[in-house]
Amino acid sequence: MIRQISDRAGPDCISLGLGEPDLPTPEVIRQAAIRVINEERNGYTLQAGLPALRELVAADYPHMSLSPDQILITAGSQEGLYLALMTLVGPGDEVLMPNPGFVAYPTIVSMAGGSSAFYNLQARDDFSFDLADFKRRITPQTKVVICTSPSNPTGRAFNTEDLRGMAQAVADSGSNACIISDEIYRELYYTDERPASISEFYPRSIVISGLSKSMSMTGWRLGWICGDTEIIDSALVLHGYVTTAASTISQKAALAAWTPDAETARQHHRSIFHKRRDHLLAALRDEAGLRAVTPDGAFYTMVDVSSFGSSMEVAEGMLAAGVVTVPGGAFGSESEGFLRVSFCAAEARLSEGVARMKQALRACEKTK
Amino acid sequence: MIRQISDRAGPDCISLGLGEPDLPTPEVIRQAAIRVINEERNGYTLQAGLPALRELVAADYPHMSLSPDQILITAGSQEGLYLALMTLVGPGDEVLMPNPGFVAYPTIVSMAGGSSAFYNLQARDDFSFDLADFKRRITPQTKVVICTSPSNPTGRAFNTEDLRGMAQAVADSGSNACIISDEIYRELYYTDERPASISEFYPRSIVISGLSKSMSMTGWRLGWICGDTEIIDSALVLHGYVTTAASTISQKAALAAWTPDAETARQHHRSIFHKRRDHLLAALRDEAGLRAVTPDGAFYTMVDVSSFGSSMEVAEGMLAAGVVTVPGGAFGSESEGFLRVSFCAAEARLSEGVARMKQALRACEKTK
Repeated sequence: MIRQISDRAGPDCISLGLGEPDLPTPEVIRQAAIRVINEERNGYTLQAGLPALRELVAADYPHMSLSPDQILITAGSQEGLYLALMTLVGPGDEVLMPNPGFVAYPTIVSMAGGSSAFYNLQARDDFSFDLADFKRRITPQTKVVICTSPSNPTGRAFNTEDLRGMAQAVADSGSNACIISDEIYRELYYTDERPASISEFYPRSIVISGLSKSMSMTGWRLGWICGDTEIIDSALVLHGYVTTAASTISQKAALAAWTPDAETARQHHRSIFHKRRDHLLAALRDEAGLRAVTPDGAFYTMVDVSSFGSSMEVAEGMLAAGVVTVPGGAFGSESEGFLRVSFCAAEARLSEGVARMKQALRACEKTK
Repeated sequence: MIRQISDRAGPDCISLGLGEPDLPTPEVIRQAAIRVINEERNGYTLQAGLPALRELVAADYPHMSLSPDQILITAGSQEGLYLALMTLVGPGDEVLMPNPGFVAYPTIVSMAGGSSAFYNLQARDDFSFDLADFKRRITPQTKVVICTSPSNPTGRAFNTEDLRGMAQAVADSGSNACIISDEIYRELYYTDERPASISEFYPRSIVISGLSKSMSMTGWRLGWICGDTEIIDSALVLHGYVTTAASTISQKAALAAWTPDAETARQHHRSIFHKRRDHLLAALRDEAGLRAVTPDGAFYTMVDVSSFGSSMEVAEGMLAAGVVTVPGGAFGSESEGFLRVSFCAAEARLSEGVARMKQALRACEKTK
């Protein structure tokens, strides 16, 4: 459904559809890669990944007291998600996931032979977590719960109260479910503090993350999963058959992501996206008169276009007007009537994108 | 079983166990990678891979008349193998594969819910293909046949007569089976001409290959699968959920693997391995009095140690003497009594390795 729109985008289109930072990979990472390409042999690493990299990742989750053996370096967080779900979910198992949520979750669950159930992030409440709804959805049969914070597609983050509530509800459910915490957007936040992780409140958590979004490293394919030893050990066996190991050059370059220079770059990228977010929200409101969700993190907002037609119809109209967005219906029933609009573009492009959106909506109104 | 030995190897061990070239990645590839890291944005490529790279790969198989859409770039040939088997094999399906053969084949088939059957590469005939045996093993129920040439673990290649015979036998079987041709070692050959591919003789072939072995790029994770449009389309969908895409930097660097400089490097690597092969075979025969298979390609030979004990016992003895080999039993019943010995080491190291092997065999004899 996402591709139905973006694959037909012409060269003059403004793409507000992508989930990929447009900023360059920080210099410190690139220079590290160049150095190892020049100076080192770059054969296979251990299948689990470079020990030095696993130690750096482990230190990012002090509350989990991870040994390096509890970290598995993957070819991007996508592989981490695939391994985690294939390891945890078997035929007939139920996975409880957010609606709206990342499109890959239910597909991989279905590949594993499991079934998907959904808890609502309420559209009427700007896609906030609804604990009462979550409690109704979790059952003793739930095998895995997926928690994505900040969220793709909404950009909303769970606050500490949400996370405590979710953790307690899972603990009370009698399910002994494992929580997969998809934290790929966690370093891109616009709140005062970095959003908390469910792993701080629920011990049976498997964290999925990587450097794609926060270090502009999508093409480098570098992610990780961490958590319970037994689960990571099983995922490691599958990983060996799926990809053997992540790229050695990407792994060695990733070591530089924990340096002060990388931290400066991370903060710089965050501030750029923060400004773009505010610019886009203001343009949507003031120029196009549209209601949009204020994201806590990631680089997406959800724009309410329910009065103009289905999200697919409106996204088609936007495409005709030269701007790519993603129909909210792709992410679940709760986000039908919305468009996911990303701010991975400079402010002038965002302004032009909103102008085209406005034009498209006028055309939608005429057709009605 | 491979790891039972190699994971216990001390720092002073000579490793003749690895399946990884020790030669550096050619300069032309490394400089291409450095250039794109310096000069270009390296976000996601299309999930199928860079169009320019797929065009280069397609041209390598002129007899298959491939369009770029029939090529899928993967995170190493391991991912290609995983995608091909998961796409082609369903619950209850039978896959016919070589004995001895690469250890990952039966495991992935089992993950896909299929069952493994085996055709023999006869140990008594230096692991040559035995068409009569193959004809007995293929049935109308065979869904997939795996053909590995040159072979891991034996280094033997199928000759043209073998390939014609296999193709005809599959066509005659009434199975309509697909043949997966694992050609990851095809550019490393010591015969006058490059070994032929089963895809030249059987249209329903899926070719798996990559640059890991011929370009010393194991750590770059760059491979491909190609063949029938419908199968590649299905594999592409799975690929999107498994890894999204291969490393962009590895893909862009791979474009240089079709330049004249890369061809020079490929020939140079091949001639180094050819000399090492001859050196190792002579040392095994003249110094240790051992019978070893003369490989047509790859960088392995199979050494007959059946008079000294089980392959596991002998490999344990070798490890105690400071040399890592792989027990043949790991690859199937037909190679029990053999060790796989690789020549990914300089000639002096190979000589020292053989000296230690000789010492270990003396100890084995004493124990008996």
